[in-house]
Amino acid sequence: MPRPSQEEKLLAAALACFAEVGYDATRIRSIAERAGMSEGALYRHYPSKEAIAQSLYSYHLRNFSERLLEVAASSGTAEVQLREIVAATLRSYRENPAAFTFVLLRQSTLMPSLPHGTVYPLDVIERMVAAWQQGGTIRRGQPNLLAAIVLGCVLRPIIVSQLAQPGALDLLHDRQHDLVISDAAWAALRAHAASSTET
Amino acid sequence: MPRPSQEEKLLAAALACFAEVGYDATRIRSIAERAGMSEGALYRHYPSKEAIAQSLYSYHLRNFSERLLEVAASSGTAEVQLREIVAATLRSYRENPAAFTFVLLRQSTLMPSLPHGTVYPLDVIERMVAAWQQGGTIRRGQPNLLAAIVLGCVLRPIIVSQLAQPGALDLLHDRQHDLVISDAAWAALRAHAASSTET
Repeated sequence: MPRPSQEEKLLAAALACFAEVGYDATRIRSIAERAGMSEGALYRHYPSKEAIAQSLYSYHLRNFSERLLEVAASSGTAEVQLREIVAATLRSYRENPAAFTFVLLRQSTLMPSLPHGTVYPLDVIERMVAAWQQGGTIRRGQPNLLAAIVLGCVLRPIIVSQLAQPGALDLLHDRQHDLVISDAAWAALRAHAASSTET
Repeated sequence: MPRPSQEEKLLAAALACFAEVGYDATRIRSIAERAGMSEGALYRHYPSKEAIAQSLYSYHLRNFSERLLEVAASSGTAEVQLREIVAATLRSYRENPAAFTFVLLRQSTLMPSLPHGTVYPLDVIERMVAAWQQGGTIRRGQPNLLAAIVLGCVLRPIIVSQLAQPGALDLLHDRQHDLVISDAAWAALRAHAASSTET
């Protein structure tokens, strides 16, 4: 069994390589060198670069889900919890931009092969949305759709912040945007006066 | 110069291969076979699989931008235009799900190398947002951030619809979700009573 510290060193090294030269251009050898181990030692942990990427993805996705589970376990109105989801997402991004971006942008290839029983961030938010809807302060709609909208309000700006020209939108350092995102996400979900009178 | 019809046949063949077996597993030979041309003929159009992907990305991104430019050129209130952006996005996705998803999910690797002068969907929406803000019906905030939020409200649900378990969220066939997305996106952007009294 790999020692956890070796494992984490390896994942951090892989992440650094992917962030620097891109996933496709990264060689197993560079990951091993960066982690301070031989190629042979690396292969005792992982059979391939794909397996490392998969593990990296799964590790950071789980971290993000755990933070959202903490929000779900907290007490608070729908608005408080929803704003806390936005804050937790921005916090996760800022604490480790390379990891967060890796998960966000590699999901098309890596997400479909995650182990059965994986808790996805979307699932955690979906359950919160369903609970909020009982309270009547949230618009009607399929809970996973509304959860996707909440995530979209914060993840798309993060993607733009990562991929746009430098300085075009800097969510990493510029916190003046946080309230705009939080306000917009809450407005997107809350039931409006017009719709609440319909019921 | 390649004949346009050959070119389009090639891009369609590449897209079909990517959608079926994934980008990484697709071989140049399979693309050529599917397009009904020899490998040699294919190489006269493109030097590599990466070049095909780049061209495919750029072609469909441009199509999407052009639709948004039509919305921008139309007359209508902020609300009408914003809802039209959402509708145009869902329409683009439904007309060619494989192409739309390819652009959406490959952006991390392909977007940074697009030719200078490329018109991005986000830029088109950003300019609309800036114009709407003059009218005072839209919340304050950096226009490209608000544009990202609008896109997030519709693109994240499309991503979920593509990647989630079959049937979990079906935006392709189920149009009951369209109004929820449109309402949410408009609510996310419009200035609320509380903020308009601040000014």
